[in-house]
Amino acid sequence: MINLNDIKLAYQKVKNFAYVTPVLSSSRINQIIGAEIYFKAENFQKVGAFKFRGAINALSIIKESTEIKEVVTHSSGNHAQALALASKLLGLKAYIVMPENSPEVKINAVKEYGGKIIFCKPTLQSREDTAQKVIVQTGAEFIHPYNDYRIIAGQGTCALEALSQINFTPDFVITPVGGGGLLSGTAITVKETNKNIKVIGAEPKNADDANKSFKAGYIIPQTNPNTIADGLRTSLGNKTFDIIKNYVDDILLCSEKSIIDAMLLIYESLKIVIEPSAAVPLATIIENNEHFKGYKVLIILSGGNIDIKNFKWFAET
Amino acid sequence: MINLNDIKLAYQKVKNFAYVTPVLSSSRINQIIGAEIYFKAENFQKVGAFKFRGAINALSIIKESTEIKEVVTHSSGNHAQALALASKLLGLKAYIVMPENSPEVKINAVKEYGGKIIFCKPTLQSREDTAQKVIVQTGAEFIHPYNDYRIIAGQGTCALEALSQINFTPDFVITPVGGGGLLSGTAITVKETNKNIKVIGAEPKNADDANKSFKAGYIIPQTNPNTIADGLRTSLGNKTFDIIKNYVDDILLCSEKSIIDAMLLIYESLKIVIEPSAAVPLATIIENNEHFKGYKVLIILSGGNIDIKNFKWFAET
Repeated sequence: MINLNDIKLAYQKVKNFAYVTPVLSSSRINQIIGAEIYFKAENFQKVGAFKFRGAINALSIIKESTEIKEVVTHSSGNHAQALALASKLLGLKAYIVMPENSPEVKINAVKEYGGKIIFCKPTLQSREDTAQKVIVQTGAEFIHPYNDYRIIAGQGTCALEALSQINFTPDFVITPVGGGGLLSGTAITVKETNKNIKVIGAEPKNADDANKSFKAGYIIPQTNPNTIADGLRTSLGNKTFDIIKNYVDDILLCSEKSIIDAMLLIYESLKIVIEPSAAVPLATIIENNEHFKGYKVLIILSGGNIDIKNFKWFAET
Repeated sequence: MINLNDIKLAYQKVKNFAYVTPVLSSSRINQIIGAEIYFKAENFQKVGAFKFRGAINALSIIKESTEIKEVVTHSSGNHAQALALASKLLGLKAYIVMPENSPEVKINAVKEYGGKIIFCKPTLQSREDTAQKVIVQTGAEFIHPYNDYRIIAGQGTCALEALSQINFTPDFVITPVGGGGLLSGTAITVKETNKNIKVIGAEPKNADDANKSFKAGYIIPQTNPNTIADGLRTSLGNKTFDIIKNYVDDILLCSEKSIIDAMLLIYESLKIVIEPSAAVPLATIIENNEHFKGYKVLIILSGGNIDIKNFKWFAET
């Protein structure tokens, strides 16, 4: 387990490389929602997502305390790009195992950041086998996208930074929840800073494993997620779940339609580009409006990586 | 005619109400283009466009120096919203003459900012007649969207602010050109600050009246503009053209395809929402790449008002 001190230590490393992203607000959104909402804009973070924080923290620790020069992960998402760039910045080498049918835009992004791509078949089995082969052949260290305390501590620096940027205590802090790295890191930061602040996870109804697991008290893995919030289709890990059980107040759900509505509201009012996963917190506020009326809410906008030209601006439900 | 001093005086008024918008850059864009490009992000300005600067300057002058309490314009674009909000902030009343077939999103925006909408038939004749009627009935002062020195001076404050934000002298400053308010104000600011900086207007091939007028030496009005850059379909005015003739180095053109390419590059690299007109400067750089290789370029991103859900991400040409 980690605590606020680990996150403060992580921030000492993270801030050497990460951007200090702005906290934004819109009087139009506040008027429509009836609450004061502050958006920590991690879409402006390096690689376009908060994932850079966890990756640079984990790799900084590896570089300082081991002889390891190579790391590996299997991912086609923001963690892959984050690990590739963090490796480049620290002079390490990152192997990224990606399904051979990954979108070209994602393959190119990892290449641009200097990652070495190893293709595999598009199954979880093949991803894990291929990563295992890289570990055996190269001695690379596997860096899990969320079920790793170094990653969790890195993600927790985002809320730490945001709380220092705003000059008030929010009533709520809300993050999206997929594997739970951002939510668990945020929860430690917030609750160990001020336990009166409510920490909420936001999840699509169509990928509601965190909500179900939270209610059940044990992990119920995600099967057949069907959501446009592509960053949130994964299941919780045991490390992230333990933290979430202990620190998070609630996990709220939202429909696909609300995700699109929230995205549009953010695009048109804040004039920023976010990915669907980043709209999920605002979508849960739209659907559970009565909980938030009149309160101050800090939302972590997780990222801005979206194939905008091909994005379908209607719900899949 | 006005000069840099008028623009400095305008800035004293404008900065009481306008946001100081950020100047952004992207190493990815710089790598792709082969130049150092700096984007003055007026999409983050009040009402989502630089037009607020001109409107608040004109109305501040009216409020300080006259007894006039009511203003009028005919517009369905950013100038309408800008005049509505500027009026509200200064305690004046704005009548906005809009074609009865205007998109609901634009009608609602003007209403949200407190403008009083007067509908007219969708012809220039009807717009002018209706505005004239308002002037006669109410004594309101007509505020032209660009052919007015108070408006031009206000728009010139954007480059003034940007030059003070960056700590170097750019080789080029580029703005889109429609009616010429932004370009002419920018040109005065830049050339009277440092005449070695080249000032370029950027225009769609499919609405190239400024390019043609610039070459001919007299105004050639725009007929049948067919461009997705909806803010740039208007013709130059005599006041803006006189300034452009004297101060601007060149007017470069771009295709519809390049406008889309430039928009996508900005959305995906800077993670910000802009309207098609704002992408036109980068589009002209893409098409005239050899002129800009290795240089420092300041671009004014004119605005971010776009019906994103219904926007067609392919060129109309």
